[in-house]
Amino acid sequence: MAITIRDVRAILTMPDGANRLVIVKVETSEPNLYGLGCATFTQRHTVVRTAVDEYLKPFLIGKDAERIEDLWQTMYQNSYWRNGPVLNNAISGVDQALWDIKGKLARMPLYQLLGGKCREGAAVYRHANGRDHAEVLERVQQFVEQGYHYIRVQLGGYGGDSQGVSRPSPDSALPGVYFDPDTYARSIPVLFEYMRSKVGYDVELLHDVHERLVPIEAIRLAKQLEPYRLFFLEDPLPPEQNEWFTMLRQQCATPIAMGELFNNPHEWIPLITRRLIDFIRVHVSQIGGITPAKKLAALAEAFGVRTAWHGPWDTSPVGHAANLHLDLSSPNFGVQEWGGRFPEAVQEVFPGIPEERNGYLYPNDKPGLGIDLNEKAAARYPCSDGPPGWTLTRAPDGTAVRP
Amino acid sequence: MAITIRDVRAILTMPDGANRLVIVKVETSEPNLYGLGCATFTQRHTVVRTAVDEYLKPFLIGKDAERIEDLWQTMYQNSYWRNGPVLNNAISGVDQALWDIKGKLARMPLYQLLGGKCREGAAVYRHANGRDHAEVLERVQQFVEQGYHYIRVQLGGYGGDSQGVSRPSPDSALPGVYFDPDTYARSIPVLFEYMRSKVGYDVELLHDVHERLVPIEAIRLAKQLEPYRLFFLEDPLPPEQNEWFTMLRQQCATPIAMGELFNNPHEWIPLITRRLIDFIRVHVSQIGGITPAKKLAALAEAFGVRTAWHGPWDTSPVGHAANLHLDLSSPNFGVQEWGGRFPEAVQEVFPGIPEERNGYLYPNDKPGLGIDLNEKAAARYPCSDGPPGWTLTRAPDGTAVRP
Amino acid sequence: MAITIRDVRAILTMPDGANRLVIVKVETSEPNLYGLGCATFTQRHTVVRTAVDEYLKPFLIGKDAERIEDLWQTMYQNSYWRNGPVLNNAISGVDQALWDIKGKLARMPLYQLLGGKCREGAAVYRHANGRDHAEVLERVQQFVEQGYHYIRVQLGGYGGDSQGVSRPSPDSALPGVYFDPDTYARSIPVLFEYMRSKVGYDVELLHDVHERLVPIEAIRLAKQLEPYRLFFLEDPLPPEQNEWFTMLRQQCATPIAMGELFNNPHEWIPLITRRLIDFIRVHVSQIGGITPAKKLAALAEAFGVRTAWHGPWDTSPVGHAANLHLDLSSPNFGVQEWGGRFPEAVQEVFPGIPEERNGYLYPNDKPGLGIDLNEKAAARYPCSDGPPGWTLTRAPDGTAVRP
Amino acid sequence: MAITIRDVRAILTMPDGANRLVIVKVETSEPNLYGLGCATFTQRHTVVRTAVDEYLKPFLIGKDAERIEDLWQTMYQNSYWRNGPVLNNAISGVDQALWDIKGKLARMPLYQLLGGKCREGAAVYRHANGRDHAEVLERVQQFVEQGYHYIRVQLGGYGGDSQGVSRPSPDSALPGVYFDPDTYARSIPVLFEYMRSKVGYDVELLHDVHERLVPIEAIRLAKQLEPYRLFFLEDPLPPEQNEWFTMLRQQCATPIAMGELFNNPHEWIPLITRRLIDFIRVHVSQIGGITPAKKLAALAEAFGVRTAWHGPWDTSPVGHAANLHLDLSSPNFGVQEWGGRFPEAVQEVFPGIPEERNGYLYPNDKPGLGIDLNEKAAARYPCSDGPPGWTLTRAPDGTAVRP
Repeated sequence: MAITIRDVRAILTMPDGANRLVIVKVETSEPNLYGLGCATFTQRHTVVRTAVDEYLKPFLIGKDAERIEDLWQTMYQNSYWRNGPVLNNAISGVDQALWDIKGKLARMPLYQLLGGKCREGAAVYRHANGRDHAEVLERVQQFVEQGYHYIRVQLGGYGGDSQGVSRPSPDSALPGVYFDPDTYARSIPVLFEYMRSKVGYDVELLHDVHERLVPIEAIRLAKQLEPYRLFFLEDPLPPEQNEWFTMLRQQCATPIAMGELFNNPHEWIPLITRRLIDFIRVHVSQIGGITPAKKLAALAEAFGVRTAWHGPWDTSPVGHAANLHLDLSSPNFGVQEWGGRFPEAVQEVFPGIPEERNGYLYPNDKPGLGIDLNEKAAARYPCSDGPPGWTLTRAPDGTAVRP
Repeated sequence: MAITIRDVRAILTMPDGANRLVIVKVETSEPNLYGLGCATFTQRHTVVRTAVDEYLKPFLIGKDAERIEDLWQTMYQNSYWRNGPVLNNAISGVDQALWDIKGKLARMPLYQLLGGKCREGAAVYRHANGRDHAEVLERVQQFVEQGYHYIRVQLGGYGGDSQGVSRPSPDSALPGVYFDPDTYARSIPVLFEYMRSKVGYDVELLHDVHERLVPIEAIRLAKQLEPYRLFFLEDPLPPEQNEWFTMLRQQCATPIAMGELFNNPHEWIPLITRRLIDFIRVHVSQIGGITPAKKLAALAEAFGVRTAWHGPWDTSPVGHAANLHLDLSSPNFGVQEWGGRFPEAVQEVFPGIPEERNGYLYPNDKPGLGIDLNEKAAARYPCSDGPPGWTLTRAPDGTAVRP
Repeated sequence: MAITIRDVRAILTMPDGANRLVIVKVETSEPNLYGLGCATFTQRHTVVRTAVDEYLKPFLIGKDAERIEDLWQTMYQNSYWRNGPVLNNAISGVDQALWDIKGKLARMPLYQLLGGKCREGAAVYRHANGRDHAEVLERVQQFVEQGYHYIRVQLGGYGGDSQGVSRPSPDSALPGVYFDPDTYARSIPVLFEYMRSKVGYDVELLHDVHERLVPIEAIRLAKQLEPYRLFFLEDPLPPEQNEWFTMLRQQCATPIAMGELFNNPHEWIPLITRRLIDFIRVHVSQIGGITPAKKLAALAEAFGVRTAWHGPWDTSPVGHAANLHLDLSSPNFGVQEWGGRFPEAVQEVFPGIPEERNGYLYPNDKPGLGIDLNEKAAARYPCSDGPPGWTLTRAPDGTAVRP
Repeated sequence: MAITIRDVRAILTMPDGANRLVIVKVETSEPNLYGLGCATFTQRHTVVRTAVDEYLKPFLIGKDAERIEDLWQTMYQNSYWRNGPVLNNAISGVDQALWDIKGKLARMPLYQLLGGKCREGAAVYRHANGRDHAEVLERVQQFVEQGYHYIRVQLGGYGGDSQGVSRPSPDSALPGVYFDPDTYARSIPVLFEYMRSKVGYDVELLHDVHERLVPIEAIRLAKQLEPYRLFFLEDPLPPEQNEWFTMLRQQCATPIAMGELFNNPHEWIPLITRRLIDFIRVHVSQIGGITPAKKLAALAEAFGVRTAWHGPWDTSPVGHAANLHLDLSSPNFGVQEWGGRFPEAVQEVFPGIPEERNGYLYPNDKPGLGIDLNEKAAARYPCSDGPPGWTLTRAPDGTAVRP
């Protein structure tokens, strides 16, 4: 007899006090058989909840929980308009929960269903930020001592925004975070020159532009960084300007990671099939979950592109578990973004978080995703309201810049 | 504790008296836990056996049976030279057997591990052959009455070879099957004109060129067949001449199925990514089994190409089961080639053959591939020896033509 | 009266104690008229034997030994599935033997039939390996003193694997040869800086990546090596990733040699016709022998690409003779890989091995390939069994990497 | 000891009273060992003689006659400016003669050195010309009765020139053959409609535009002829306008034969590698003989293009023998142009002309090209002087048109 979907719920929680997480719980006709999925879209968290509770739940109840592919396709087309944030996150929550259920039914960790482990653990990269060279260096050295092999190096936050703005802005400035792309772009090669002189080349260094440069500036930066052998340069262009990668690739061999903002296949298919990037960085819940992510990994493999799934703290621990099962079972895994040990409150809410040792992540041996949700604890950490502020970035003259 | 591989064996059998089948049996450290895979390459069956028994077996014994992806990659690279018949077939035998084992461990039919059913059954196409129009029509009508919806229509065998050659060949003919491409190419539009006038357009008709035309002739034929709305035109070009599809696609909208001879990614990636075909027809054991096939299906899905896995009787029932699990779980499944109910001897050797009802194939509910091998019965049907004769095809002037 | 094929046999031997050689002997209706061909695929030697003895032999017996082109085409198409290792090697064994017979019938060294000598001898390159700069330099200087003009410089084996892995791998490492692509990639420009400072530019230096880098790393390396004027950089990419050469060619003018792993025309035709490489490196027996190799040489000539046939010690002396006859008669010959004087046991088994003087190879004046096989001696050196170990290469995190 | 070149001579003769033939005779240090080659360029015959006697002869005397490839390369580069008529013809005469010598030394018909026969005989096409439909039909029917399978159908000579000009020309007409492209282009589809209604489709029909249309008219004609299933449409464009084939190929699937005027690789390489033609039609002596022709055949094979070497009566019998040896040994041979049994005088001058039976050409079994030259007889048929008249073609308004 088919195992059917009995209930679907979005659960919102913010145990770290900053990241609003959206978890989808799918319950089945089988007692105690349920799955969890990450649907987190921290900037619009309650919109995702509305999408799950008011649209996916009634669509799914009574349906066969084991037909993941078919449910994915029908959830996807049920909104008619598709391929964007909110709806993809909602689908992802359900999709990951269904794979969690599938693993539990099979009594296997999810990576087993995806083909088994290609490696024991997934190498992670950490984020080293500082106000000046010395502070960044100190952070990098700490990470190296802790056993990390891949470190993302930033000066003054994404895009160097805390460096201050070197040029005067017009008289009455608009509200927002001011950022000077020129100052930023000039500072990064200098930073890497310094870092390489101090730490050498035995540690892999990364850098994230966070889509904050105009295209030609991004290309110039990628080219200037070439001698410093970055493991990758992350998101050098905003997703609207993908075509500029053609020019970037004609001029330098700096490895490129791209895509945390992608949620439409037109954003990644040409970049991959034309080999314009080296690492695909999508946020798994932004593209709709494990079902599309394993297909994307297969596509990337055919073209020599590796995965580097997006994974800051606004990826919930459930989402991190999903990333890790993909990481272990994909031959073309590259590296995993990771924010380090979660705060206690998060650990309390999400028992079973992947363990990290010596720069590698390891899953536990429980079936499915291997992670649970303590709903009572979650309820103790309600989410804050409203839109985020930090994404309002402006150039010195007040022009809103992406992102 | 890991379940390890205890033994690997190639088993050869020919229960239908014509098709030499190669089955790989992988036994594990777990009593009674084994898997079966199809490694059939009927034209070189014992060569595959040597590859399995003398190379893959010693490579695999003692290894973790659940790490399918890693074993696939390492079997693939262990021969250094790779991507071709024989070695791919051998890998396929092991790969399918490992997925069979995985399904048994999960106590699930394989399609469940691949994402669950996207449809209840897989539509099949049958092969209607005849010496003249009336005979072909009779066969088509029989199939329609039996409930089939897709019928491949051929006049006088592949390439019409039994129609006789209308032009004399030079003095002392070389050995081989003679075939006149011009007579054949002219006969097919006439056949379809006749068939459509008799059976109308409510039945899907297909045709297989079997790579027997020179490129320009294949293009001319595809163009001439356009008005008859074929479901697809199969293998119009030999695999060496893939680039001619660019021209074909500029001239007509006849749907194209291609690839039963492919065994190298360079053969299918450009055709799919440049959207030069509509159906990918590879023989699953020629590309290395389920592991590469599910990736290929994902690639094809991204480009709007559907699957139509090769499936004549030189695909063993084990291979047919593998095809069917892929068919049911791939959203972009197109149609499945199928030779009809297997003879009694084959059913005896392979308990659990997928059932066919009303033009659709259905798997049984057993875990894994759902098919078994009666080794004693298999031993009663030994394979014939040596090279096949039918692949020696010559043009009227004696030139060897492909295939 | 036609000279027909009376017998075909694969003979296996391993006189150097390491390389498993496969020789095909074709005997004819003419007493004492036979030919020898190299079918060596050392990683799968007995699989080739099965293909020769059980399929090609019955296919060939009684056929006209002088119709090489027709036999090539019909052997090729007889397996229906084609273009891969094993079957190509088997065909090569027969094809080379038939050319050997043809030369004997003509009483001419084979190069005469191929158009005559374009040069007196074929320049060879040697392989200088060492654990550190000093050791490599010493080997290079020895080769220079011995009269060699082309030297392939490697540090710590292919991909530098014996240099050790600079970063810890995850907890329980999988079996395999561990290799750190980053350490390797960084070490090579330093090595060449050192070598050029010591030996100058009057000796041609080469380097072999052996397909062990991810694409962007290979491109970065090729670019960094540009100032050191390599004669060529060998196999920078795995064959699956040929398309990345487009990007490599936009960024640097380092000469590229590619293709020892190729066995399908879709692998070499685009690289040559799009001028993405400078030297075609195929292993002659992997593509099917002299018949396809002379066509490939003609194709390459039209596009300004030179030949550099693969020729380590797993090319048998018979294969080396075939290479040499092609080298001497092709106007676009580049350089020949050569392992140096064969050990005594190999010389005993294969009387007539090409002679090397002052960095050049010279054939003897005997008809055909000019090399013989002492079958009694060959039998004294039986081959070892099973799969090779060295092809199992893993990245520091345990990921299987190609090759 | 090397066999050296003792003498080289161009011999001019016109035994059929119309075609001025140029034969090169190469004599060697070996008594009675000589070779013959066709260097015919009937429109500039004495220029070729000058090139042979005053340039190639002194260059060649004393050189090793067996090093054909090297001699080809050095003759080619010796003039510095290269790749054109006259010099290519001269080289061809020597090259064919050297292959003739090579075959005699090997005591083998030349096809044996080129890989052996791929077919027993080479199918030929004949030329059916007439002033009106009835006359053309009569000629076609005669050819069919004589056993021919391929017939080129022309109305009123090349380009229909004898049909008269339907539009008035300017008052004082310039000298030349007047030809109206519009009248001609309209007449050919009508002709083929008539022919197919009379002879059906069991005979292969061809047509030669002889480069006499402007590009768009040629494309229009190719398209209009598509329903009549030509075996090929010959030389639809002048060689200067090759790029128009891109457009032609987007619009129709009429098989195209091209190239009798080519003598520069830039003319054929793009057409073949971009698959813009189906048959390569070069005149073997215009491209420099057998050495480049076998390379060109190999190139064409890789791209699915067949050979149809130019072969009217201004190809000497020696040239026809060269064509035939290429035809028999090339797997991708298509068809051979052939003017029918040579007149008695030609047979007298050239003992050993290939024999034709039932539409197929067969060589004799003599070594080398298998053809001889009776110099005494040749001398009895001296060539006429001066430039040809028929190539002076004009449009109705007096514009000189190509050719």
